[in-house]
Amino acid sequence: MIKTGIYYAYWVSDWDTGFIPFIEKAGTLGFEVLEVNAGTISKMSRKERTEIRNAAEYAGISLSACIGLHPSSDIASEDISVRTRGIQHLHSIGDAMKDCGIDRLSGIIYSSWPGKLEGRSISKQQALAYSIASMKEAVKTAEDNDLVYNIEVVNRFEQFLLNTAAEAVEYVRTVDSPNLKILLDTFHMNIEENSMYDAITTAGPHLGHFHLGENNRRPPGGLVGFSWKDIFSSLHAIHYDGWAVMEPFLNPGGEVGRDISVFREIMPAADLDEEAKKSCEFIKGIIRSFTDESAPALI
Amino acid sequence: MIKTGIYYAYWVSDWDTGFIPFIEKAGTLGFEVLEVNAGTISKMSRKERTEIRNAAEYAGISLSACIGLHPSSDIASEDISVRTRGIQHLHSIGDAMKDCGIDRLSGIIYSSWPGKLEGRSISKQQALAYSIASMKEAVKTAEDNDLVYNIEVVNRFEQFLLNTAAEAVEYVRTVDSPNLKILLDTFHMNIEENSMYDAITTAGPHLGHFHLGENNRRPPGGLVGFSWKDIFSSLHAIHYDGWAVMEPFLNPGGEVGRDISVFREIMPAADLDEEAKKSCEFIKGIIRSFTDESAPALI
Repeated sequence: MIKTGIYYAYWVSDWDTGFIPFIEKAGTLGFEVLEVNAGTISKMSRKERTEIRNAAEYAGISLSACIGLHPSSDIASEDISVRTRGIQHLHSIGDAMKDCGIDRLSGIIYSSWPGKLEGRSISKQQALAYSIASMKEAVKTAEDNDLVYNIEVVNRFEQFLLNTAAEAVEYVRTVDSPNLKILLDTFHMNIEENSMYDAITTAGPHLGHFHLGENNRRPPGGLVGFSWKDIFSSLHAIHYDGWAVMEPFLNPGGEVGRDISVFREIMPAADLDEEAKKSCEFIKGIIRSFTDESAPALI
Repeated sequence: MIKTGIYYAYWVSDWDTGFIPFIEKAGTLGFEVLEVNAGTISKMSRKERTEIRNAAEYAGISLSACIGLHPSSDIASEDISVRTRGIQHLHSIGDAMKDCGIDRLSGIIYSSWPGKLEGRSISKQQALAYSIASMKEAVKTAEDNDLVYNIEVVNRFEQFLLNTAAEAVEYVRTVDSPNLKILLDTFHMNIEENSMYDAITTAGPHLGHFHLGENNRRPPGGLVGFSWKDIFSSLHAIHYDGWAVMEPFLNPGGEVGRDISVFREIMPAADLDEEAKKSCEFIKGIIRSFTDESAPALI
């Protein structure tokens, strides 16, 4: 059954933080997964990573990791030293994940975040070729440690290489590793895909991770918003059995507000814990409706 | 009745161009309005502007103008010389519009495009205060010449000041000129607003212009996409009688592809004229259904 999770940065203004309080909070609010920042764990000591692993095991929470590579570690760069740094960074992230007991990474791991075509001396096709060659190296850590790396399809304003599920499928087919899959995110699909159903179907067996968020990154559910039953019906149709991690961002300020481009309170005066809890219950209810045979059939 | 239009840049790769062929094309395809680039007409001679005016009159096409101010003309800048340049630029645009017989301007005329908060030495509130003070000056050209300036609400990746209709309403109320109104665009609302219906209702009598586009900037209509009947029903409910101008962007390359962040063919091998014509017919049909009393009522 699909597990429901939340990204820790929902609660913080700056990316680097200790994750243990959020492991406990996620469990209390009903989540089964906490997604953490892969960059942060890669900077931690082995002792700190072991503490995270133990805290997650104690709370019964699974962990996933996410990152957008910094432009100085862009594995699609025309500069070989930048690509090499990126591949090395992905290797150390793989090591850090192992220490934390994390088996899946996702994000903009195929280039940089943000990543513009403008300013590069190469074309999109050339950048893609560099990225694919780098990824064939980087994914070896995943293959050696039974990890899955998921390339995140994002909107045009954050990256130029992979804006659609179709582009991502072509990428993973070219790299051709069972440890390389795709992350689709409803916020990004809503900007780029003709149809979320088609995008999920196109990803099919290559879909390794899934991010949830309403159109403006509110937590899923509420009076207006996406048709989550249809979205999970599409996931059900392709037999998706990965995790569904919400990635809401509601407040401006700090590194997170700056990097996510949040310039106003998206839900003024919202109680973050309460909204997360409601959204978690809502999503878990939908997931149950597809697995519980006693639930009414969806049309 | 709402007139249906199209933005000329649908057909070009670079912003500066002659508009007369597109005036004729728009008419042939069924449109009643062509929207042109205000920056381009501001650089034209009076003779060239008169030719545009005559061509539009001859074709029976109304013209509107649109611009995103360059950062060097940002009227929200902390640098008084940049703000002054922006105000001057808006004055010369107003003069150029008069020569062309254009009575409405819209776009990011309250700051710059693109416009990030990062890198400024002032807060969003301070930038907003500079913008409003500048606009009180700039709008005088509109007041003196019976023009309407419409501030465009755009997504977070293109501007930080006005991402929602509610923010724009507060802005125009503060400037308090009958010649300053709001442009809402379905592409941008889809990223930022909880509900397009609420956004249109919030703008209400302040709505002076309206842009159409599907979620990924395809022309309106087709097998999947927004509920255009609901969108026009919302416009009907607020008695909107301005124009509805589609602003599709389908192809990468050139200044336009770069600035709009199009990195792939959104509709591969599409016949641009044919798609525009189909979309124009579709939108005009919906508009007629709200004004033709013999048309079946919409639920």
